[in-house]
Amino acid sequence: MIRVAILGATGYTALELIRILLRNPQVQITAATTRQEGSPHISSIHQSLTGRLDLCCEDLTVPQIIERADFAFCCLPHAASAAVISELLDGGLRVVDLSADYRLNDPATYEKWYKVTHPDPDRMAKTVYGLPELYGERIPGEQLIANPGCYTSTSILALAPLLAAKLIEPTGIIIDAKSGVSGAGRSAKQNILFAECNESFSAYGVGGHRHQPEIEQVLSDVSGEPVDVVFTPHLVPMDRGILATIYARPTSDVSSEDVLNVMREFYSGKPFVRVVDHLPATKDVSGTNYCHITARRTKGYVTVLSVLDNLIKGASGVAVQNFNLMAGFPETTGLDPA
Amino acid sequence: MIRVAILGATGYTALELIRILLRNPQVQITAATTRQEGSPHISSIHQSLTGRLDLCCEDLTVPQIIERADFAFCCLPHAASAAVISELLDGGLRVVDLSADYRLNDPATYEKWYKVTHPDPDRMAKTVYGLPELYGERIPGEQLIANPGCYTSTSILALAPLLAAKLIEPTGIIIDAKSGVSGAGRSAKQNILFAECNESFSAYGVGGHRHQPEIEQVLSDVSGEPVDVVFTPHLVPMDRGILATIYARPTSDVSSEDVLNVMREFYSGKPFVRVVDHLPATKDVSGTNYCHITARRTKGYVTVLSVLDNLIKGASGVAVQNFNLMAGFPETTGLDPA
Amino acid sequence: MIRVAILGATGYTALELIRILLRNPQVQITAATTRQEGSPHISSIHQSLTGRLDLCCEDLTVPQIIERADFAFCCLPHAASAAVISELLDGGLRVVDLSADYRLNDPATYEKWYKVTHPDPDRMAKTVYGLPELYGERIPGEQLIANPGCYTSTSILALAPLLAAKLIEPTGIIIDAKSGVSGAGRSAKQNILFAECNESFSAYGVGGHRHQPEIEQVLSDVSGEPVDVVFTPHLVPMDRGILATIYARPTSDVSSEDVLNVMREFYSGKPFVRVVDHLPATKDVSGTNYCHITARRTKGYVTVLSVLDNLIKGASGVAVQNFNLMAGFPETTGLDPA
Amino acid sequence: MIRVAILGATGYTALELIRILLRNPQVQITAATTRQEGSPHISSIHQSLTGRLDLCCEDLTVPQIIERADFAFCCLPHAASAAVISELLDGGLRVVDLSADYRLNDPATYEKWYKVTHPDPDRMAKTVYGLPELYGERIPGEQLIANPGCYTSTSILALAPLLAAKLIEPTGIIIDAKSGVSGAGRSAKQNILFAECNESFSAYGVGGHRHQPEIEQVLSDVSGEPVDVVFTPHLVPMDRGILATIYARPTSDVSSEDVLNVMREFYSGKPFVRVVDHLPATKDVSGTNYCHITARRTKGYVTVLSVLDNLIKGASGVAVQNFNLMAGFPETTGLDPA
Repeated sequence: MIRVAILGATGYTALELIRILLRNPQVQITAATTRQEGSPHISSIHQSLTGRLDLCCEDLTVPQIIERADFAFCCLPHAASAAVISELLDGGLRVVDLSADYRLNDPATYEKWYKVTHPDPDRMAKTVYGLPELYGERIPGEQLIANPGCYTSTSILALAPLLAAKLIEPTGIIIDAKSGVSGAGRSAKQNILFAECNESFSAYGVGGHRHQPEIEQVLSDVSGEPVDVVFTPHLVPMDRGILATIYARPTSDVSSEDVLNVMREFYSGKPFVRVVDHLPATKDVSGTNYCHITARRTKGYVTVLSVLDNLIKGASGVAVQNFNLMAGFPETTGLDPA
Repeated sequence: MIRVAILGATGYTALELIRILLRNPQVQITAATTRQEGSPHISSIHQSLTGRLDLCCEDLTVPQIIERADFAFCCLPHAASAAVISELLDGGLRVVDLSADYRLNDPATYEKWYKVTHPDPDRMAKTVYGLPELYGERIPGEQLIANPGCYTSTSILALAPLLAAKLIEPTGIIIDAKSGVSGAGRSAKQNILFAECNESFSAYGVGGHRHQPEIEQVLSDVSGEPVDVVFTPHLVPMDRGILATIYARPTSDVSSEDVLNVMREFYSGKPFVRVVDHLPATKDVSGTNYCHITARRTKGYVTVLSVLDNLIKGASGVAVQNFNLMAGFPETTGLDPA
Repeated sequence: MIRVAILGATGYTALELIRILLRNPQVQITAATTRQEGSPHISSIHQSLTGRLDLCCEDLTVPQIIERADFAFCCLPHAASAAVISELLDGGLRVVDLSADYRLNDPATYEKWYKVTHPDPDRMAKTVYGLPELYGERIPGEQLIANPGCYTSTSILALAPLLAAKLIEPTGIIIDAKSGVSGAGRSAKQNILFAECNESFSAYGVGGHRHQPEIEQVLSDVSGEPVDVVFTPHLVPMDRGILATIYARPTSDVSSEDVLNVMREFYSGKPFVRVVDHLPATKDVSGTNYCHITARRTKGYVTVLSVLDNLIKGASGVAVQNFNLMAGFPETTGLDPA
Repeated sequence: MIRVAILGATGYTALELIRILLRNPQVQITAATTRQEGSPHISSIHQSLTGRLDLCCEDLTVPQIIERADFAFCCLPHAASAAVISELLDGGLRVVDLSADYRLNDPATYEKWYKVTHPDPDRMAKTVYGLPELYGERIPGEQLIANPGCYTSTSILALAPLLAAKLIEPTGIIIDAKSGVSGAGRSAKQNILFAECNESFSAYGVGGHRHQPEIEQVLSDVSGEPVDVVFTPHLVPMDRGILATIYARPTSDVSSEDVLNVMREFYSGKPFVRVVDHLPATKDVSGTNYCHITARRTKGYVTVLSVLDNLIKGASGVAVQNFNLMAGFPETTGLDPA
């Protein structure tokens, strides 16, 4: 039995983590934290858990967490996360960090995009990036894993095979990405009210979203040369799901089928990435840990399409994949693959 | 030219008011108030107004409003509204109050349901209730009109003809009402976030919503005897629209057609209420000032269905109807009837 | 290993059945039928199953089905279902019928509401109604189970404890029910197009929906006296979920807590029905086999609220509950209870 | 008084046309056609028109239309439209054609993309393309106007100023466009059912949508050199609205402000196109005839964003703009500009 703590238990990613972990009989969720006063029961924060998990969310200290748990999923905001994680690691816990704190290798890049000094900069470059399809072999032995961003996984899984095979130019890649609203979190903000987002579609962060340097860092690592992307996120009036439409210039006169074959080979044996022939919809993977990708040769470009559920394969599902690899469970435990 | 002030200009009802009033060339919107700092331009608060109204929202004092305007629409929260309105009236302005402050006649009932002492109790019973289909003849001469609640108009327009004709029992009436999310306002609250409301349907305020005493007061006035209703509001994952499904016991063995005929006669000549034969959908009246109603005789009950757009016929549209009657414009000015 | 056939595999209930059954390693889906030509692969009909189930949908004869399967889930339209089922039973298959064909006991009632002659009337009264919370003890030994309707389960689970305890009057019960659009099926019809249903809310079948006699039959059986309800269904712009708001007259002066206690006792030990204190939302149970119910004493009425996922607890989830009981699996297999 | 016929009155564009035309007291809608049997009243086809227009939809012959009307809006499918229009023109009617039949100049291009022989090829190159912001001076004297496609107007209005000013390269332009579901029409098809589209986002027609040659033809005309675009349409779970995110390579080192200034000058005095500083949302223009556009200089590209309501500025609103210009009404009649 592994005792698990969820740090920052009030948001959507925490809820998904709990739902998935409840399927693993060898896991016991022993701690859930919040800054809310009064130690509310988890079912008053997530009504859907009524009768499924008997646990109160508490404002626990790090020593209390260390005492209660062997493993921690950290769903805290960036900077707050790293401030806690170094202590958790010192206390012997193993950690999957769902914040952005250990994704980037370079403290200067982090500070430029997140506008805050990193509390634990030395550990940044050493931390393995938790995308099991790329770094799965390095994950089992690690004490800390940096869980990827949702837009970044969607984009990286789509582009990695083509960059690794040098099928596309590494520069000027356009990633036009669209996400459901749950990606914006559960804090009360006017711009994500129902009556603001519903029946509306809009772009945001044009030319300056924080997932851009993360995508570039990982893809540069994959391709072995500097990758440069223009990333435009959009808000879709739906709960969950990301679709990325990606335009890259081919290095030679490849066909759609050439590109699909490279993708299929790259993901052979990977349980959660499916290369499909049809045009995928976010609904195809909603509520699952799958990523579906396809590609088409279009006039002057290779157009790649990639979909996943931002809360699962884009956050809590891949976090459990990482946890499974770290804890020695089958990679798919709790994640429902056929 | 009538100079109009919008008090509390940041919400959805203010936006709808402005959209409607812009269609009347004899109206000039000369003031819009907000407590936000920095006097933001109206188009930064309501992007859809970009290029349509050149006006800044200011934190104006009552004397400033009196100097700039002849007429005020008051979209302030309850209690805040009445605190300002008595001064506006003293300054000679005419006012349509979209808050709940002057709808109820009895200060004690108000205090019971709104949990606050009324700032101007003496004026409550004297103020005409601004539902033109019932009180249209009294509206033109008034200085202050209490604009009805959205659920209340939906319910009252459905039931008034049947109670006036004594076709149904005045007690035990069940009003099962469903509203789009814009009815909950534009303040950032977690329960009206997109990812909370979307793909969900729920009841709220079971047995204790503030529109219940308002419905009972007006319908008791219409029927000449005490009316008693059980009112259950629900939240529908859509922007706008209310549908009320109402169950009342018939006083005699009436048919569906009998009921429809009584309704048709009651609303003969009224431009905004349509008695329809089909089952109405909220979409039929979305974006319009119409209310569509129908009725069916069912086992032991008369089932009445009523739909309107909560932001228009349920708020800003009827407010302009009241304004038109007060200002001497045709009742339908700006309100698009065929 | 149990070999399972899905008859009528192109709809939403079939998809949910497959998703649930794929979690049970002792089940093999060996046949899926459709009238579509060309034996399309299941993943071309349900894109989300790509890579998860390798099976073609065929226009199989009954003998072919009998040869390939031990158990059949029948998702065919009413009348078409009964026409096939008697043969399947003769061939030794065990069957859960998701159509309406064996729910009602009385052929005359069936013909009145479904406007068709029943192909197998003698079996109607003998078939057990597959609501395991009421008839769970009778289900294991049966060869054929009639899977309940979605509105009916929502309503029956809410009312059964109160009628069994004689807390409410059995007549004049109002069931105001609201369903997501998936309940209307997957056949191309104009009234369920996205641009028709979205941003709209409407009632349908006022005074005459087919689930009304089914609700009355089962509740009369539970209460031991004739139960009479007025049932009004509504369409909610969401994929899935049903909420029923139910108004019944109490037989004595009970409190909310009295009613909740009776409910809690009734469902003690039942894994999928939760009596909750809060007002439930359909989203709380979306994607799950749970039903959440609560009650409030309101002026003159007991108001009961009940939610479930129409495709799961309202259709395919309860079908698998029935299958599990029939096949000797734990009742919760594949159904994710904590 | 101008007598107007609506050919093909059952769809969404016809409904919007009627709503707009009802605001012009000098227009009388005298004919509405359908192939449905039984001459249904317009309010049974469009419930929202109940009580607003008393007209039956009939299967009229061309001579009957010519007798009843002076002007026709043709909302028929492509090919069917051109088959009728030549006769209408011979009969002296003036026509706005909302189909694709007269948009392209070249019959061979038409046949390639629409897979049908054009019934009236000689008139194609002569017909003025009804985008008043570009061709407004030529419209008043014409007998036939080809109303633009919805994606095309969104794209052309965004790109025309930049191509006219030679600020961007004319080749390799990427148009990533997203549309609400009403753009797919009102015919019952499984892929646009609510439960298919809702909570889903997907691309379609990758590399091969019919609006691509239309965009290229008009933009080549504007820029005076061949324009070549890659166009990818997507389906957004909302009723109405299009947003196009466009990536073009600048010809020189322009800033965001440079681009915005060129846009502002280009649309100076045009009532329905607003160049905005913020990132526009489709909701800003929903239900209106406005198009909002903006631009940003991003790494290596100019990113242009453009939004409009596909049923209004993308179809029926611009059709009425064209009608107003042809009939001598102010361009904005019925179209609500402030």
